[in-house]
Amino acid sequence: MSNNSIQAPPPDVVRSAYAELIVTDLAASRRFYVDVLGLVVTYEDDDAIYLRAFEEYLHHCLVLRRGPVAALGRLAYRVRSADEVDAAEMFYRELGVRTERVPAGAERGIGEAVRIEDPLGFPIEFFYAADHVERFTQRYDLHGAGAIARLDHFNLVVPSVPEARKYYESLGFKVSEDIQDSDSTVYAAWMYRKSTVHDVALTGGDGPRLHHIAFATQEAHQLMHICDHLGAVRQSDRIERGPGRHGVSNAFYLYLRDPDGHRIEIYTHDYYTGDPDNPTITWDVHDNQRRDWWGNAVVPSWYSEASPVLDLDRRPRPITERAEAREADVTIGADGFSYTRAGDALAGGGPVGFKLGEQV
Amino acid sequence: MSNNSIQAPPPDVVRSAYAELIVTDLAASRRFYVDVLGLVVTYEDDDAIYLRAFEEYLHHCLVLRRGPVAALGRLAYRVRSADEVDAAEMFYRELGVRTERVPAGAERGIGEAVRIEDPLGFPIEFFYAADHVERFTQRYDLHGAGAIARLDHFNLVVPSVPEARKYYESLGFKVSEDIQDSDSTVYAAWMYRKSTVHDVALTGGDGPRLHHIAFATQEAHQLMHICDHLGAVRQSDRIERGPGRHGVSNAFYLYLRDPDGHRIEIYTHDYYTGDPDNPTITWDVHDNQRRDWWGNAVVPSWYSEASPVLDLDRRPRPITERAEAREADVTIGADGFSYTRAGDALAGGGPVGFKLGEQV
Amino acid sequence: MSNNSIQAPPPDVVRSAYAELIVTDLAASRRFYVDVLGLVVTYEDDDAIYLRAFEEYLHHCLVLRRGPVAALGRLAYRVRSADEVDAAEMFYRELGVRTERVPAGAERGIGEAVRIEDPLGFPIEFFYAADHVERFTQRYDLHGAGAIARLDHFNLVVPSVPEARKYYESLGFKVSEDIQDSDSTVYAAWMYRKSTVHDVALTGGDGPRLHHIAFATQEAHQLMHICDHLGAVRQSDRIERGPGRHGVSNAFYLYLRDPDGHRIEIYTHDYYTGDPDNPTITWDVHDNQRRDWWGNAVVPSWYSEASPVLDLDRRPRPITERAEAREADVTIGADGFSYTRAGDALAGGGPVGFKLGEQV
Amino acid sequence: MSNNSIQAPPPDVVRSAYAELIVTDLAASRRFYVDVLGLVVTYEDDDAIYLRAFEEYLHHCLVLRRGPVAALGRLAYRVRSADEVDAAEMFYRELGVRTERVPAGAERGIGEAVRIEDPLGFPIEFFYAADHVERFTQRYDLHGAGAIARLDHFNLVVPSVPEARKYYESLGFKVSEDIQDSDSTVYAAWMYRKSTVHDVALTGGDGPRLHHIAFATQEAHQLMHICDHLGAVRQSDRIERGPGRHGVSNAFYLYLRDPDGHRIEIYTHDYYTGDPDNPTITWDVHDNQRRDWWGNAVVPSWYSEASPVLDLDRRPRPITERAEAREADVTIGADGFSYTRAGDALAGGGPVGFKLGEQV
Repeated sequence: MSNNSIQAPPPDVVRSAYAELIVTDLAASRRFYVDVLGLVVTYEDDDAIYLRAFEEYLHHCLVLRRGPVAALGRLAYRVRSADEVDAAEMFYRELGVRTERVPAGAERGIGEAVRIEDPLGFPIEFFYAADHVERFTQRYDLHGAGAIARLDHFNLVVPSVPEARKYYESLGFKVSEDIQDSDSTVYAAWMYRKSTVHDVALTGGDGPRLHHIAFATQEAHQLMHICDHLGAVRQSDRIERGPGRHGVSNAFYLYLRDPDGHRIEIYTHDYYTGDPDNPTITWDVHDNQRRDWWGNAVVPSWYSEASPVLDLDRRPRPITERAEAREADVTIGADGFSYTRAGDALAGGGPVGFKLGEQV
Repeated sequence: MSNNSIQAPPPDVVRSAYAELIVTDLAASRRFYVDVLGLVVTYEDDDAIYLRAFEEYLHHCLVLRRGPVAALGRLAYRVRSADEVDAAEMFYRELGVRTERVPAGAERGIGEAVRIEDPLGFPIEFFYAADHVERFTQRYDLHGAGAIARLDHFNLVVPSVPEARKYYESLGFKVSEDIQDSDSTVYAAWMYRKSTVHDVALTGGDGPRLHHIAFATQEAHQLMHICDHLGAVRQSDRIERGPGRHGVSNAFYLYLRDPDGHRIEIYTHDYYTGDPDNPTITWDVHDNQRRDWWGNAVVPSWYSEASPVLDLDRRPRPITERAEAREADVTIGADGFSYTRAGDALAGGGPVGFKLGEQV
Repeated sequence: MSNNSIQAPPPDVVRSAYAELIVTDLAASRRFYVDVLGLVVTYEDDDAIYLRAFEEYLHHCLVLRRGPVAALGRLAYRVRSADEVDAAEMFYRELGVRTERVPAGAERGIGEAVRIEDPLGFPIEFFYAADHVERFTQRYDLHGAGAIARLDHFNLVVPSVPEARKYYESLGFKVSEDIQDSDSTVYAAWMYRKSTVHDVALTGGDGPRLHHIAFATQEAHQLMHICDHLGAVRQSDRIERGPGRHGVSNAFYLYLRDPDGHRIEIYTHDYYTGDPDNPTITWDVHDNQRRDWWGNAVVPSWYSEASPVLDLDRRPRPITERAEAREADVTIGADGFSYTRAGDALAGGGPVGFKLGEQV
Repeated sequence: MSNNSIQAPPPDVVRSAYAELIVTDLAASRRFYVDVLGLVVTYEDDDAIYLRAFEEYLHHCLVLRRGPVAALGRLAYRVRSADEVDAAEMFYRELGVRTERVPAGAERGIGEAVRIEDPLGFPIEFFYAADHVERFTQRYDLHGAGAIARLDHFNLVVPSVPEARKYYESLGFKVSEDIQDSDSTVYAAWMYRKSTVHDVALTGGDGPRLHHIAFATQEAHQLMHICDHLGAVRQSDRIERGPGRHGVSNAFYLYLRDPDGHRIEIYTHDYYTGDPDNPTITWDVHDNQRRDWWGNAVVPSWYSEASPVLDLDRRPRPITERAEAREADVTIGADGFSYTRAGDALAGGGPVGFKLGEQV
């Protein structure tokens, strides 16, 4: 991928806006997303459910669409105006990737849009116009104990984080935080347009795959209620990792797996990044507090599993293996190490600094 | 142990009241209990630190005493009156265990007391009189973000839970919850005098050892701040397990290890047990939500490690191995199993129902 | 009232257990107690609704019964055993007040009981046996964002607090806190059997009347959600006072008025009082932080309004005027004063220490 | 003020960035802002204290400067680049208001800047460059129980809200919410650059005066701890209004008065406004939930009192009386009215819908 000759300006992206997930059992998905997570149904029929969170006024932030194989159907970024949809089309045509203009209503509730297969292999939509629906910010009569406020971000698995970062920088995204090692291998990066820690995170691994989509709550107790609720309905095995405090982003987090295995993060309390000189934070991949500030273990599935993505013809995209070192390999087990205190890493021979009691 | 011929009534125990922990580095302990946990220093000198929590008005709930080997020095139960101290002495003399009457001030801030080596092998004190100090309930100027309200309970490792339970029942304790299997092997029991889930928990294992002592906060966010604080001072490896929601007790929990390895639980939101017919809840040892309602894994050290206890001459007590099945063995790994949904356990051959991604 | 010659011991009261409120519009009451407060319906028919909170396993803690005039029908204390019901009957017969033995089921879900018109003029029931129902402690799938854990206490308006206190002391209740002035006029007292700040509070005023009944939540955010919910359904005018932090009890509080004007408190985070020497706290009636630790004003209706009470024949009890000084009179307005800092009260001529901006 | 002939583009404002308050007793102010609010001291000397919140990395968000009369010294907006400082200078020169270019360090920690007397009479600074200091986001060892995350907004008292709104719209601010009556009299407006409900609020009244500056916490419990802390140090009379939930903005709020009477808001949980079509919400001035979603009364001082502002020569600006109707007059007392339910306003003759018990 070379952007050198690109003349067209990138579209002005406002934020990550909605995801379409292909699910194999719509009723099972509804029990998870509506009955447990409490997302608001804007519209549903036999083929799809359109959901939004309590503080959102666009038609949806999540579409669950029935399909034969669980996969990511599409990620959508909102752009600043209708003209920016045109800008997106020109930008990607010039970039030489597949683009497809779709009329208003091609996706229910969404206006005219352009869909692309991006250079990283993801099916992406850019749109501006969307139906407005009632914003339930103060409909506290409808808020459950685990009320979700809004979609926050997407997390993508890509073989090369630097390459993906360069692509997203060309779209005007900035890096808030990343994870590297002393050889400058980059394991992950967090990039934003809106003034939060990220709209998109790039996680090094075999890709393109969708690592997760994340929803924000107002307070941490709401996130924890979701765990309690899952326990009550005997679905605690949907809790993959957390709750915990991220090192990166400082957010309080929880990772769930939906009935098809799609990973959903519940997330709250990252920080404001809207100033132009917002400092980038680089974490050492061996710092055991980078992924969990409390040093709690990252379960192996979190590193290895992710959702396949479809192309614009709804066929699964082939997966490219990551060529660089993998975070799980360099931090866990016989060949990897993590430390709680940087100085400790210098001591001794074998792996050091694992949490007490966590050694396998 | 036979209580059949005991004539003397047991002392009227009010609640678990204080613990004395022998620590090897008083300054390191102070950094943990005062600087991180924020306990209030009632008195300190070169040999000991006396601590209390913000809602307590007795002289201390925890004594840290310098000694050569980390161990439990003593656990103390408060009885309802001075007469009950006499009652305790008579009860234990008749029981035939070693008893020792100590004058007021034998422990700073504590009145006349009787100390015993109880039938389970633990060094126990019964006292009524104690110095009153200022109760800092509303000294919010002193409360940190992780303010601890009061001592809640002790947790003891004993080889035979039924035997230990029988002993504590003879002292008038009642069982709120326990963990059993279908063969009626008992793995743990929770017993109370005050109207919470427990003053003492009995955990099956090699004993006598102290599993942990627990402190209560008012709200869950205070517990989580302790984790955040430990992360900030790069001591997240003091976090052994949690935070999480217990199945048993419903409490929100966190397990820490102090600089000597003594385990401290932070605990909040169990339930009222003060009615005479409070129902006992029995959990299946294979229920994966019994120890963590969210199904998160119990780390191996939590099952295996505990503090030695001293006798009245300050010599370590010998350890008796548990003869019955061990909870870790029957629930984890090749020979054990856990389920999230009871029905799932019936299916298939091998272990079932482990959390997604947690399989080793 | 003279207890001097009483020989019969008082019944061993465990705690405040349930209230029966007479309401004029059962459907309106249901919308408040079930739809907003989220109490669990154990049973309902055209005449009554039986409600419990999420951590309760007795049949009900509140009965809403349709009647012609809004009033308190009955308050019930649970005693420690069936024998204590007999003890209650003997105690009150000897006391010379009206008593009435009722068979099991006289109130749905409640066993054999004795009902009395107590010396203060209140209709009181003592019972032990009650139907057990499912305890919804961990039914987080049913807990709303404002989930109520349990009934906490009753608050009674009585003309003479010292007389009422003496009566409740004869029943074995102890005083945790009270409000007095420098002339030893007592304005209110908080008394307990279970190990919280109170099972019953005595508020000086024209009585007998019911000031309020109180329910406990686990955390403060649950209490605040109830306010948010009332705002969402445009019933914020049911919020009479608060939310705030009490000086007395340290609890976080909220006062609501139900559709008939019955006052309901939501309450959380008082402190443990179970030790035999729990210190009594006396507050100066002029201390502006006694009723609200944050110094926020007590609305006049909170002082003056309360529910009438019925006798055992369901006739309204006559009201006796308070003869002593009234708290509202001595603390508010031209003839009263309050201070934030005790020293400030000595300064100047007129009222001092009112909150900035609160002067009328 | 006529903007018709303005050619120069407005500076690209990022957000409200810092305030300078003139205080008469620096030690007293320090006790409030540092000891109670817990703001971090970046620098202090005998004349000034520079403070920042825990998630901020610029040198300060608040300067307390010793002076003879309590007043607002300056409000500062950050612009997107150094060029935008030049843009600001040109814009205001063309506008014909007084401007003053100041070199880097004219205010400690701040780079080259332009200061103006804006058309509304406020002393405003525009800057881009500023010293970076350590961001204490994860310094949880330093976070108190009432930790403040960042400055959120300014609130200005202006005689004409429409005029002030027009001016701020010319600077590129957008309106998130406002309060009007059926005659289109505007009582207040909330305007933003960053993607929150506001960077500046305009409150109708005698002006120019500073109504308040606001700081954001992460969670509501942190805000409430500030109240508890003030109670503990017997300064609850610094609490002017709240805590409560705003109708406008949905934020949880608290208003304090510093030792000089400057009003400080603590604020949390408004909503994302960063999309270009963020809907504007207009509230009826008679809606009793507009200023407090729970219908709690606004104290009179909150409407009437505010801080004077200085001009660039540090002389107090003259005050212009509001000519239009005042919110307090039209909503409270004999000539005003408020309703909880819109339909209720139609009924009856006199004021309706006041909260039960709140009638004076």
